[in-house]
Amino acid sequence: MKSPHYDQIGHSFASDNNSGVHPAVFQAMLDANCGHVIAYGDDPYTSRAISTLRKHFGDTSEIFFFLTGTGANVASLAALTRSYEAVICAETAHIHVDECGAPERFVGCKLLTVSTPDGKLTPEAIQGAIKGRGDVHAVQPKVISITQTTECGTVYTPAEIRTICSFAHAQGMFVHMDGARLANAAVSLGCSLQEMTADCGVDILSLGGTKNGIMYGEAVVIFRPELSEDFAYYRKQTTQLASKMRFIAVQFEALFAGKLWKENAAQANAMAFLLSERIAEISGIEIVYPVESNAVFVAIPEYAVLPLLADYYCYISDEGRPVARLMTSFDTEKDDVFGLFAALRCAVSS
Amino acid sequence: MKSPHYDQIGHSFASDNNSGVHPAVFQAMLDANCGHVIAYGDDPYTSRAISTLRKHFGDTSEIFFFLTGTGANVASLAALTRSYEAVICAETAHIHVDECGAPERFVGCKLLTVSTPDGKLTPEAIQGAIKGRGDVHAVQPKVISITQTTECGTVYTPAEIRTICSFAHAQGMFVHMDGARLANAAVSLGCSLQEMTADCGVDILSLGGTKNGIMYGEAVVIFRPELSEDFAYYRKQTTQLASKMRFIAVQFEALFAGKLWKENAAQANAMAFLLSERIAEISGIEIVYPVESNAVFVAIPEYAVLPLLADYYCYISDEGRPVARLMTSFDTEKDDVFGLFAALRCAVSS
Amino acid sequence: MKSPHYDQIGHSFASDNNSGVHPAVFQAMLDANCGHVIAYGDDPYTSRAISTLRKHFGDTSEIFFFLTGTGANVASLAALTRSYEAVICAETAHIHVDECGAPERFVGCKLLTVSTPDGKLTPEAIQGAIKGRGDVHAVQPKVISITQTTECGTVYTPAEIRTICSFAHAQGMFVHMDGARLANAAVSLGCSLQEMTADCGVDILSLGGTKNGIMYGEAVVIFRPELSEDFAYYRKQTTQLASKMRFIAVQFEALFAGKLWKENAAQANAMAFLLSERIAEISGIEIVYPVESNAVFVAIPEYAVLPLLADYYCYISDEGRPVARLMTSFDTEKDDVFGLFAALRCAVSS
Amino acid sequence: MKSPHYDQIGHSFASDNNSGVHPAVFQAMLDANCGHVIAYGDDPYTSRAISTLRKHFGDTSEIFFFLTGTGANVASLAALTRSYEAVICAETAHIHVDECGAPERFVGCKLLTVSTPDGKLTPEAIQGAIKGRGDVHAVQPKVISITQTTECGTVYTPAEIRTICSFAHAQGMFVHMDGARLANAAVSLGCSLQEMTADCGVDILSLGGTKNGIMYGEAVVIFRPELSEDFAYYRKQTTQLASKMRFIAVQFEALFAGKLWKENAAQANAMAFLLSERIAEISGIEIVYPVESNAVFVAIPEYAVLPLLADYYCYISDEGRPVARLMTSFDTEKDDVFGLFAALRCAVSS
Repeated sequence: MKSPHYDQIGHSFASDNNSGVHPAVFQAMLDANCGHVIAYGDDPYTSRAISTLRKHFGDTSEIFFFLTGTGANVASLAALTRSYEAVICAETAHIHVDECGAPERFVGCKLLTVSTPDGKLTPEAIQGAIKGRGDVHAVQPKVISITQTTECGTVYTPAEIRTICSFAHAQGMFVHMDGARLANAAVSLGCSLQEMTADCGVDILSLGGTKNGIMYGEAVVIFRPELSEDFAYYRKQTTQLASKMRFIAVQFEALFAGKLWKENAAQANAMAFLLSERIAEISGIEIVYPVESNAVFVAIPEYAVLPLLADYYCYISDEGRPVARLMTSFDTEKDDVFGLFAALRCAVSS
Repeated sequence: MKSPHYDQIGHSFASDNNSGVHPAVFQAMLDANCGHVIAYGDDPYTSRAISTLRKHFGDTSEIFFFLTGTGANVASLAALTRSYEAVICAETAHIHVDECGAPERFVGCKLLTVSTPDGKLTPEAIQGAIKGRGDVHAVQPKVISITQTTECGTVYTPAEIRTICSFAHAQGMFVHMDGARLANAAVSLGCSLQEMTADCGVDILSLGGTKNGIMYGEAVVIFRPELSEDFAYYRKQTTQLASKMRFIAVQFEALFAGKLWKENAAQANAMAFLLSERIAEISGIEIVYPVESNAVFVAIPEYAVLPLLADYYCYISDEGRPVARLMTSFDTEKDDVFGLFAALRCAVSS
Repeated sequence: MKSPHYDQIGHSFASDNNSGVHPAVFQAMLDANCGHVIAYGDDPYTSRAISTLRKHFGDTSEIFFFLTGTGANVASLAALTRSYEAVICAETAHIHVDECGAPERFVGCKLLTVSTPDGKLTPEAIQGAIKGRGDVHAVQPKVISITQTTECGTVYTPAEIRTICSFAHAQGMFVHMDGARLANAAVSLGCSLQEMTADCGVDILSLGGTKNGIMYGEAVVIFRPELSEDFAYYRKQTTQLASKMRFIAVQFEALFAGKLWKENAAQANAMAFLLSERIAEISGIEIVYPVESNAVFVAIPEYAVLPLLADYYCYISDEGRPVARLMTSFDTEKDDVFGLFAALRCAVSS
Repeated sequence: MKSPHYDQIGHSFASDNNSGVHPAVFQAMLDANCGHVIAYGDDPYTSRAISTLRKHFGDTSEIFFFLTGTGANVASLAALTRSYEAVICAETAHIHVDECGAPERFVGCKLLTVSTPDGKLTPEAIQGAIKGRGDVHAVQPKVISITQTTECGTVYTPAEIRTICSFAHAQGMFVHMDGARLANAAVSLGCSLQEMTADCGVDILSLGGTKNGIMYGEAVVIFRPELSEDFAYYRKQTTQLASKMRFIAVQFEALFAGKLWKENAAQANAMAFLLSERIAEISGIEIVYPVESNAVFVAIPEYAVLPLLADYYCYISDEGRPVARLMTSFDTEKDDVFGLFAALRCAVSS
């Protein structure tokens, strides 16, 4: 799918990372630009941001800042596994579909994928992927990786996460959560970040920032202290150690010291709900997954694809019929939604 | 070496990445923060920055933006090698000493190290590392990796680089240049960036930005079109593909559209020369490598280590005697140098 | 599934590698045990065996002896791919299920698995696994790996192989064939080895020996000369270079200089057909896949599992119902088959 | 160095793996060729061989049979390390020089090499390779790998090994011993196998068989039970799990149930000593390393190289002057030594 001429882009619904940076985040970066500090995270900005995140994830959590979500995922999986072990994930998982094989390449492990109706794993589905326990010919499942919110825009409830964690731990496995859009899930569920993670038994979390209004940066949150002892080496070895770390730290500080993380996510979610309500009015298109966060997946007729793309560049997958992924962002406004709605209606009726 | 209390840091000489961001660079980032653009580099800011860099490196050069220097190096080496091949580098090389084994881990290749007096490889020294050509028990050298400026602060002349490239190509090998401080080398030599790279036959370059006054970001410059065809996959697989790419792009644009890259490097170099001149006045300490860029390595007495560190945190290596690495930065001022000089003199005379 | 007391084993149907060594093969090894020869394959025995195999696979084929099938597969896939590429295989494939993640670990690539009814890939099924062509977030399929005979005991016809090869080559992909039981397929189809491989467009073949009556040893046969240039390095780097290579070579010579390879396979196949005919008489059990080589998969009632295993150790998988894999070998005799048949009938009627 | 026409080879001194198989070993393989046994080591032959080896290495040692020495080394190092850790070895070590980068490729770790006069590491030399402890930019040394006998033919005394093990353990490191020629060392020292390994604190051992008179096969001996728990997965994942394992097992049984291992090594050593005594008579050539096992390294004049190779193919390295490695084997006879001596004398006087 070729991307559009640039001047065609007003507000994009192609991805929540097409947006820029929230002004308060930018201001924090400007404020941090004074003088010298030690590089690689041994600075007061980073210390403060770690303290701030611990208020959300628990006093014993360990925090490591990263540059990209793929980097955060890869280092997390590397720390949890030996090369003959395996990671179980949904066949829609970002680590399987969208990271160009980085987990296999760097971690060395096999990913065992599970088919799901909506991007959400269940113990039953996971159990089906566990074969050959104790057989040296078979890789040994060691990690269950779940995405919150999922790549389908759905959200695990805390009860569902707890069940998966109990299942994993009973079998000597770990749970990794890819939380690229964790803020959107928290807003959707009306719960705290800790209630969805540490309190459920999650062992390690990739916490997204970029899709929540910052410029760049992710964090890995480790809930078992013993896993964090040598984690800094994995961060460096995955090429993810930022030298001027303070500028990542202050972005997280800007998000999480107050309520910005929640406000940004709430705005994105609200606009997705608005969009889904309006779309329900259009006959001939269908919402594919429950709208529970900031993503709306709509099946559209084949003939509507090109007209839609002419107005709004977005990712369209072929699932028997064309399905458009429409993402809202922290800066999506009602008028943006109305514009997309009009384009969709027009494309479908053309 | 524990790092100091933060409030002890005024201007640091520990590394050129302890500095912040040049104001003009920051302004460019602010200017780019308007509205939505496609993520992952398919945006007009990135296109423009690529055009700008091509003016420095040649019209046929291919440019890929990265997040860290280690990432840029690792992806470059991966693109040049098969796993049974090897990379020859100085034993002081950043890829060997300071990347926590990321090249071996991701690329799979062995690094063959060469001892040098000053961080600079020569064909004679390289020849000594080439053994077992055609023997299946031995790794097959395929890449010569040189650093400009070197980790010792010394600078290869274009003639020296040309000689190494000719030597490499005659043997079917490639030349990778780690140019984390390439700007400092250009200023030191009084030559253009192209005269040190493409014109000499360098095949692939990691071009540093962070140490030249930007916040984050590096670039890989590929001088052989055929090497660039699948390079984007290596960038993604090494976890180095930034989503909001425009913010890296505009930083490079700010540096390289005008003369900022050169001014920043010139200031850093000038301050190192000033420092080295003053240090020559102090008896009992010795400058270890020729001062040719923005680094001054000084051997100091054992008893002077703690007093120096009390005032100025820096990296001290044990090479029979303590050797302090003193780096100047784009924002180093004369008064900073005088301050360090006074501290050094005081430490030595204590 | 615990294995039995050893004295319970008469003739095993657990696997065709539970057998010993054909006497003619052993004699060839004895004959080669005279004096010194250069190690690692630079000896006259190896040269002769290569010439012999070329008579079966074509004059331009290149032959490399290996120690294990997993080693042969891993080196083959490594030679065909770069780390961001992917291998498409059936979800039943040995490389996916039975090699403990060695391909991911050594090759670095992702395996993309395809569900099949009988272990056989088709262009339609393969097409479904090809997604994200040209998208840097997605691994790029580069190899189609098929197994002949399949892990289900079924056999690709030359026409089917030709179709897959054409499909692959049209898309710039290679075809790897895991031929651990290639001899059984040739006998089943009544065709030559070349007619199933080189003549169909197969690019690289892992040719099994161990399951065809030898003690140890496999061969990789490369049909495209350009792929063989550096293949010896992959063999060594995968730890698969045997020092006393002559003893592998003479085993292949013993098999392939005359008709031993065919006789051994024919006996195994005939015994499987005999077994399947007799089994058809037993009500309550069902043959799961077409019996086309030396494997018979039978679904048996849950209650029959333990009684069967008490007499005949074999591998039983859980596919909704218990399915026993029964393998015949070059040394399986009619009486062995009758014994197993009696045990099966007894177990089912118990 | 091209290898000779095959008919020029009588008794080779090129390597101890140019020999064939000891008749008693061959007889044991023949005896094991009766009927079916479970594959992959779950058979009575393997159990018995493990018991036999435990008599040499201690009751709590764990034994795993492998196919090649490189495989045994790679799996051992993989089990001892995480990817950010490093292995310290002599720059002459087989794992560094002769395994085509398999350790880096499979284990992911960097090898840190130490220069030695005679292939033997010392704590002082090792200490020099330990840098950057606790620094995330640096790989963290975790294993010391020593070779017994060394690649120079020298032998560590038990006291020297004990010192290295104490040094390693005091720093939280492991000791791996590459014992491709361990039998030769035991004979040279007049001590048992256990006295050189378990009793000194060695953690894991690659025990060679091929150079001690068998056809193929090596063993890994693990002295710390906790390291053996998942070791079988590493063996499989490194492609080293033999299916017809019994045939490796009985070879080790043949060597180690009685004194064959010792007799074979003693003959090889004695012939090397004889050779070195005679060589001392020849002026113009010089023995380079102390002759302590079955290797004699002799520096010869440049003009003698081609005449020597015309009669005796061997490996000649360039260490300022040509140095020929002359290896004796279990089947080397006095007349072979006299023949080589005559050829050497003739080549030097030519």
